[in-house]
Amino acid sequence: MTHLLSVADLGRDGIDEVLRVADAFAEVARRPVRKVPTLRGKAIATLFFEESTRTRLSFETAAKRLSADVLSFAAASSSLKKGESLRDTVETIEAMGIDALVVRHSAAGVPQQVARWVRSSKVVNAGDGWHEHPTQALLDCFTVRQVRAEQGRDPRFEGLQVLVVGDVRHSRVARSQVLAYSLLGAEVTLAAPASLLPPSLEGWPVRVAEDLDGALVEADVVSLLRLQAERGSGAFVPSLREYTAGWGLTSRRAALLAPTTIVTHPGPMVRGVEIAGDVADLPQAVVTRQVTNGVAVRMAVLFLLLGAPGGAEGLGKEADG
Amino acid sequence: MTHLLSVADLGRDGIDEVLRVADAFAEVARRPVRKVPTLRGKAIATLFFEESTRTRLSFETAAKRLSADVLSFAAASSSLKKGESLRDTVETIEAMGIDALVVRHSAAGVPQQVARWVRSSKVVNAGDGWHEHPTQALLDCFTVRQVRAEQGRDPRFEGLQVLVVGDVRHSRVARSQVLAYSLLGAEVTLAAPASLLPPSLEGWPVRVAEDLDGALVEADVVSLLRLQAERGSGAFVPSLREYTAGWGLTSRRAALLAPTTIVTHPGPMVRGVEIAGDVADLPQAVVTRQVTNGVAVRMAVLFLLLGAPGGAEGLGKEADG
Amino acid sequence: MTHLLSVADLGRDGIDEVLRVADAFAEVARRPVRKVPTLRGKAIATLFFEESTRTRLSFETAAKRLSADVLSFAAASSSLKKGESLRDTVETIEAMGIDALVVRHSAAGVPQQVARWVRSSKVVNAGDGWHEHPTQALLDCFTVRQVRAEQGRDPRFEGLQVLVVGDVRHSRVARSQVLAYSLLGAEVTLAAPASLLPPSLEGWPVRVAEDLDGALVEADVVSLLRLQAERGSGAFVPSLREYTAGWGLTSRRAALLAPTTIVTHPGPMVRGVEIAGDVADLPQAVVTRQVTNGVAVRMAVLFLLLGAPGGAEGLGKEADG
Repeated sequence: MTHLLSVADLGRDGIDEVLRVADAFAEVARRPVRKVPTLRGKAIATLFFEESTRTRLSFETAAKRLSADVLSFAAASSSLKKGESLRDTVETIEAMGIDALVVRHSAAGVPQQVARWVRSSKVVNAGDGWHEHPTQALLDCFTVRQVRAEQGRDPRFEGLQVLVVGDVRHSRVARSQVLAYSLLGAEVTLAAPASLLPPSLEGWPVRVAEDLDGALVEADVVSLLRLQAERGSGAFVPSLREYTAGWGLTSRRAALLAPTTIVTHPGPMVRGVEIAGDVADLPQAVVTRQVTNGVAVRMAVLFLLLGAPGGAEGLGKEADG
Repeated sequence: MTHLLSVADLGRDGIDEVLRVADAFAEVARRPVRKVPTLRGKAIATLFFEESTRTRLSFETAAKRLSADVLSFAAASSSLKKGESLRDTVETIEAMGIDALVVRHSAAGVPQQVARWVRSSKVVNAGDGWHEHPTQALLDCFTVRQVRAEQGRDPRFEGLQVLVVGDVRHSRVARSQVLAYSLLGAEVTLAAPASLLPPSLEGWPVRVAEDLDGALVEADVVSLLRLQAERGSGAFVPSLREYTAGWGLTSRRAALLAPTTIVTHPGPMVRGVEIAGDVADLPQAVVTRQVTNGVAVRMAVLFLLLGAPGGAEGLGKEADG
Repeated sequence: MTHLLSVADLGRDGIDEVLRVADAFAEVARRPVRKVPTLRGKAIATLFFEESTRTRLSFETAAKRLSADVLSFAAASSSLKKGESLRDTVETIEAMGIDALVVRHSAAGVPQQVARWVRSSKVVNAGDGWHEHPTQALLDCFTVRQVRAEQGRDPRFEGLQVLVVGDVRHSRVARSQVLAYSLLGAEVTLAAPASLLPPSLEGWPVRVAEDLDGALVEADVVSLLRLQAERGSGAFVPSLREYTAGWGLTSRRAALLAPTTIVTHPGPMVRGVEIAGDVADLPQAVVTRQVTNGVAVRMAVLFLLLGAPGGAEGLGKEADG
């Protein structure tokens, strides 16, 4: 791996490798001392030009558990305000000896651009505009595979029915999910009001559900998306109430699900809008487990990008420092 | 200890234990390498929904000195703004594998609520509304005991006269102090204008001073409180000037104190309001020593909550990493 | 070294020592594990009363590479807003057991004042008003010496022609550069519109260029300064466009430079104002190398101030923790 910008770059083998390495790191999380020396002496910077405490904390926890040093760069207090170009900001941070830049930006394509600018640092896309959020999709796949294995079911994705519900138009999570689930062999269906579907789905390996209730009955996995009010989806639905009535996972709709169907949500959930409060608390809603797995998946990504001084052997050894 | 929410939960034995463990950690602070490996691999998050650089830095210094990893969660940039419930925020942070949450909130009772929501993480109340600020009271007791031992006086609290002066009504520090000093056997007297006393003192193990000057003469410990302008006490006093004249520890009043009387202040001090500038600089005003001891007391609390991988034996050993 | 407040305090021997120690730390930056245990157990706080992500990150990276613990104190969220005096804030931070305070402030003289207040903590001036920014000048000298050695030229500074161009009036960088280069034996010339020169240059060991083009031809080092729009220099130039025409390092002017002339800039650069975009990308513009060296120089300063538990022998040893 040179960078992690898009799920598409990873391909199926890349996804499999991340999931396999994440298995090892998930095991680290269950030890009394949850820390390995793998990335000791490496420096990882979070460059969040758009705020996201949740994703930033997850990456920072992952980096610290690998014994890396973490630097937080908050765009609000940056040199960009003094007239510096984004490129110079990036080159400056790399020049300090930062090994990986975890980049979030409200504009699609910024992490890709950053990756063209750096010389040897690695870039991780932590969400860019409406484009992609690859680690979110990877942790979703990791969680689905894990839960299905625990259910005693086939953990492979071939033929799995994945239903993505909600604001697909403005969702980078949806784009990364469609790519990841499809590459792994699952069949992805979208369910959303027409105004929240992308203007064109040409080239998307998806079907669009005719009927939400029917699609829920057949789904193995239901991926709910958040209404991205801060990215303008409010203008695309008549009201939150109508959205919930038409597309929310209400208690009535949740009763249509098979007992083994898994419900994912990237968080933060807005209870009562895209998911009813009691549905969010059902055992098949695996939101907190997704968060736990997110740390292991991000450890895997950072490990695969930055390697270990002593190679893969460092993986899983208990930190001595 | 399961959580540290209130001084009342600790009871007398709990307070004694914290003070005893803090003695060991105070010794660590005097070493050339001020770090022990006790909580290596543990992750501690500060969740400050209300800003307090001073208290946050103290907890973070304590955690780092114990070799724990520290994550800072600033509420201003949180998912709460996107409509997430506080409960989901807390469950998300715990799910990342955070072992202890240090919570400050402007509303009384939030840390208690957070403690009900977590599964295995530990919760420390770092100040909730007007309710409690237990580590502040613990470090006050630690400091009084330490200074009295140095004075060659009996370091026990039985019969000690503690005078709490100022805005008791809006002070979580006062509530925790009254509990802590009383549990340890001291006798607590309050001195404040009627408007800054709680509406009812029923059940409080305190007396109210008839006359500030007389109470100062008899006090072994004078605990000054800050006028909590940001929590609205301005409306309760006619003017800062009148407050100082009536209830401030002016130079004239400081002259009434016995030479061994200890003056504490939780900081930040507003010199010229609740304490005269030259009084703040007297040797018996132990404000900076309280700050130093605050780190040791918070190390003790985190240690008692999170234990050490190798049990109490880890306490005090020099960090090897 | 007791503190690093001004280049003048260092003197020539002090500068030489910093550059020599920085050589060793620059070597650490090229190792696979870029970390030494030198300051393990030390705590370093960044107190930035004026924002500067770039300088703060550089100091924090330096501190972490030395295995020190880092605490960030952002003035915006500080007790100062509650009425605490700056002195009490500083004494509070020192009392927590902080070994070094890295201070930036918009007012000249604040780090000097802080140094008078602390008892045993060390103070580093990370930029105070229009006064000084010593580590910036030190990293400039380090970079010039390094590049000239690579060019096969005499790395000593005697007789070197250094031309400082731009907003000298409002530049703490310029003040520190003039001192550092002069102490090392270089000859410093200033080039700026009269409105951006200090009201008096009495006592400054500098000449003022009569003609920018002629001065560029003779310069061994060209130090460009940023137009400090946020410190009011906008009122001192008729327009950015006229400034660039008269004093910017345009492509035409860059063609006047000897091929070995080194162009430095403290960053953040505003391309198209004080430096043309294509000039910033010339090999002789060493801006990113200055950033890299900045970490090594700041490691040297922190090392010289805080020493190592085992003395200088710790320098350069690989971190075991």
